[in-house]
Amino acid sequence: MKAEILSIGTELLLGDITDTNASWLAQRLAPLGIDLYYISQVGDNVGRISETIARALGRADLVITTGGLGPTSDDLTREAIAAVIGEPMVVQAELEQQLRDRFARRGVTMPASNVKQATLIASARILPNPIGSAPGWWTQPQEGAFAGRIIVSMPGVPFEMKRMWTAEAEPQLAQLGSGLIYSLTIKTVGIGESAAEEMVRHLMDGSNPTLAPYAKPDGVHLRATAKAATRNAAEAMVNALADQVREVLGPYIYGYNDETLEQAVGKLLLEHQLTLGTMESFTGGLIAHNLTNVPGSSKWYNGGIVAYQNTLKQQMGVPADIIAQHGVISAQCAAAMATAARQRTGADVGIGTTGVAGPDEQEGKAAGTVFLSVDFGGQVRTIEQFYKYPRAEVKRLGAMAAVNMVRRALLRLD
Amino acid sequence: MKAEILSIGTELLLGDITDTNASWLAQRLAPLGIDLYYISQVGDNVGRISETIARALGRADLVITTGGLGPTSDDLTREAIAAVIGEPMVVQAELEQQLRDRFARRGVTMPASNVKQATLIASARILPNPIGSAPGWWTQPQEGAFAGRIIVSMPGVPFEMKRMWTAEAEPQLAQLGSGLIYSLTIKTVGIGESAAEEMVRHLMDGSNPTLAPYAKPDGVHLRATAKAATRNAAEAMVNALADQVREVLGPYIYGYNDETLEQAVGKLLLEHQLTLGTMESFTGGLIAHNLTNVPGSSKWYNGGIVAYQNTLKQQMGVPADIIAQHGVISAQCAAAMATAARQRTGADVGIGTTGVAGPDEQEGKAAGTVFLSVDFGGQVRTIEQFYKYPRAEVKRLGAMAAVNMVRRALLRLD
Repeated sequence: MKAEILSIGTELLLGDITDTNASWLAQRLAPLGIDLYYISQVGDNVGRISETIARALGRADLVITTGGLGPTSDDLTREAIAAVIGEPMVVQAELEQQLRDRFARRGVTMPASNVKQATLIASARILPNPIGSAPGWWTQPQEGAFAGRIIVSMPGVPFEMKRMWTAEAEPQLAQLGSGLIYSLTIKTVGIGESAAEEMVRHLMDGSNPTLAPYAKPDGVHLRATAKAATRNAAEAMVNALADQVREVLGPYIYGYNDETLEQAVGKLLLEHQLTLGTMESFTGGLIAHNLTNVPGSSKWYNGGIVAYQNTLKQQMGVPADIIAQHGVISAQCAAAMATAARQRTGADVGIGTTGVAGPDEQEGKAAGTVFLSVDFGGQVRTIEQFYKYPRAEVKRLGAMAAVNMVRRALLRLD
Repeated sequence: MKAEILSIGTELLLGDITDTNASWLAQRLAPLGIDLYYISQVGDNVGRISETIARALGRADLVITTGGLGPTSDDLTREAIAAVIGEPMVVQAELEQQLRDRFARRGVTMPASNVKQATLIASARILPNPIGSAPGWWTQPQEGAFAGRIIVSMPGVPFEMKRMWTAEAEPQLAQLGSGLIYSLTIKTVGIGESAAEEMVRHLMDGSNPTLAPYAKPDGVHLRATAKAATRNAAEAMVNALADQVREVLGPYIYGYNDETLEQAVGKLLLEHQLTLGTMESFTGGLIAHNLTNVPGSSKWYNGGIVAYQNTLKQQMGVPADIIAQHGVISAQCAAAMATAARQRTGADVGIGTTGVAGPDEQEGKAAGTVFLSVDFGGQVRTIEQFYKYPRAEVKRLGAMAAVNMVRRALLRLD
């Protein structure tokens, strides 16, 4: 099956927003066995939208549109589809009532212009949108030049579009194809993409299930995908593949799908009934920020110190003679910071980070030189890393590596 | 002048990357008086690239391509342009030598495949790329079906593309038009888009210079743009307009172009020879992280405390009776934290933040209720805000508002 994506909205052509909908959808088509050859963005002009839809229907089996389903005169996707298919838009009484009820529940009278969100053409049916006012359209003419072709039209608001795709469009498309699809993203940290790929290469040859590695900012992801007659069968195939991935990459895997490294570490701390404290220098509060992004983190994160100045480090428990003897950019200072973090915040586990975020060198150490330390109940482990990247990346990579050290310490992996 | 953007690369159709090049370029076309009607993404297939370029040349005066200029067999932009214009690609000896020298400087022999980066067709000339190996093409046939049309072809790597656009393509396009362009982005904080627009509406009627507001994550931006015969004349027009903007929005303006709020505050602290310390609860280290993103921030940022647990707040100097009497989610606690931040970090200015990041309520206060305080040499100012947003947004907005309070305190605006 060949597909084409069409993103509609003048704001895309003014550069006011970047089209993240298209790349999100693109990622979801390959596992469905659907090939994507073109993506286009077009403004709120019914002639140009119609022309682009007609061309797409001429060369693809499936056209996916986002945007242009709102109630205003700028929202012209329905009008364009009606023009291309050659069928009039008709108000659906039941749909109109649902829309009116939706407004009434919010104590508002529905503006007259919203009626067009309750229209359909004969070849289309509704894709429900319980979280927004714009229903989608599934258009599939039975006759004419485009007989059998499918147009899936969804709102441009990303969270409405994603829900409609996942809950409505994708299952219907999967059934049209040879079965149902199940995917699992296995997330790793502490290993590069090529090393990870090397270790799972023997699992990457199959065509169903498939395994594909992706280098992402939060580590290397492995996406396992299977297609089967039922969801249960597809899930079982993916789980069997995931077992094989765990056999070779186990210690690097921190989570699945949307789970973050910080969530995974928080879960481990809760399970072990332990708490965490931090003392950060070059990461400058980023570790604390990442940890406190997790809802409920106050249950396992006591807090931390951003000891940016040396006097503050000493005041917060780093012995002056360690700094005098080894300097601030040293393994010894990182270790002392981890211990001070644990003790000052009254936690079981402490993180200490010191290094040169850049761009300038410090104490004769090059930008990118960092020391990371974890004190777990008095047992201290310290590593040195060198990140040849800009300041923001040095902070980001250091923060991730330090939290990963806590994960490994809790799992007794080192 | 009508333009069309074409982004080339199969990775765009797999969703592996989002096309940020297109939206970046789109933003730059309007100030040049160029109308953008279509953007498309197409894979590494010479037939589909040629077809898309030919269609674009049929309906636009200017076609901008990014991507497909690398040395591999997947890089097919040059081949497609040559096919559409109907001219053979010829190796340019001088260009080939420059490429070979570039590799030699890195101690590497140039792979044979890179020779195609040294080719041109008769209707094209080179757009230099001093920071990458792929030169761009400016193609402008003098005869044939597309006589007078322009194709600007740039690399897909964003920083190479942006440099080539700004330094090479944009000035040449501006000269083709009626003059040169100068733009200035004026950045505000603490005022909403519609309120800001209301205050500058009398300045938004002109067609040259123009003023346009944009709501961005770091505040409302106002972009002033002028077109004139010389750059100096355009700059003078923009500066005169910026003066008028400052007259009405002065206290809200924190910076210009790429300057961040934290950079602006750091500059003010340096000017006043003052230092800053933080004690954060609901912002969880985000203020510290934002401040330490500024290179050289150790000159004016002493450090901070992420006092996530109440015992840590008390240990770090918040009086127990304030918490007992008013609770942790209170103006009094925020004020005590600001003072403790100033004193504990030995700074002149202290920030204190306490509130409910959510999703759950706390002390009977709804998620989104926050208190922000600044202690400037003993003078304490505290505000309450309510952010009806998800956890990450509550943290982000609170962190920005607190740093803005420091700016206003230093400028004696309150």
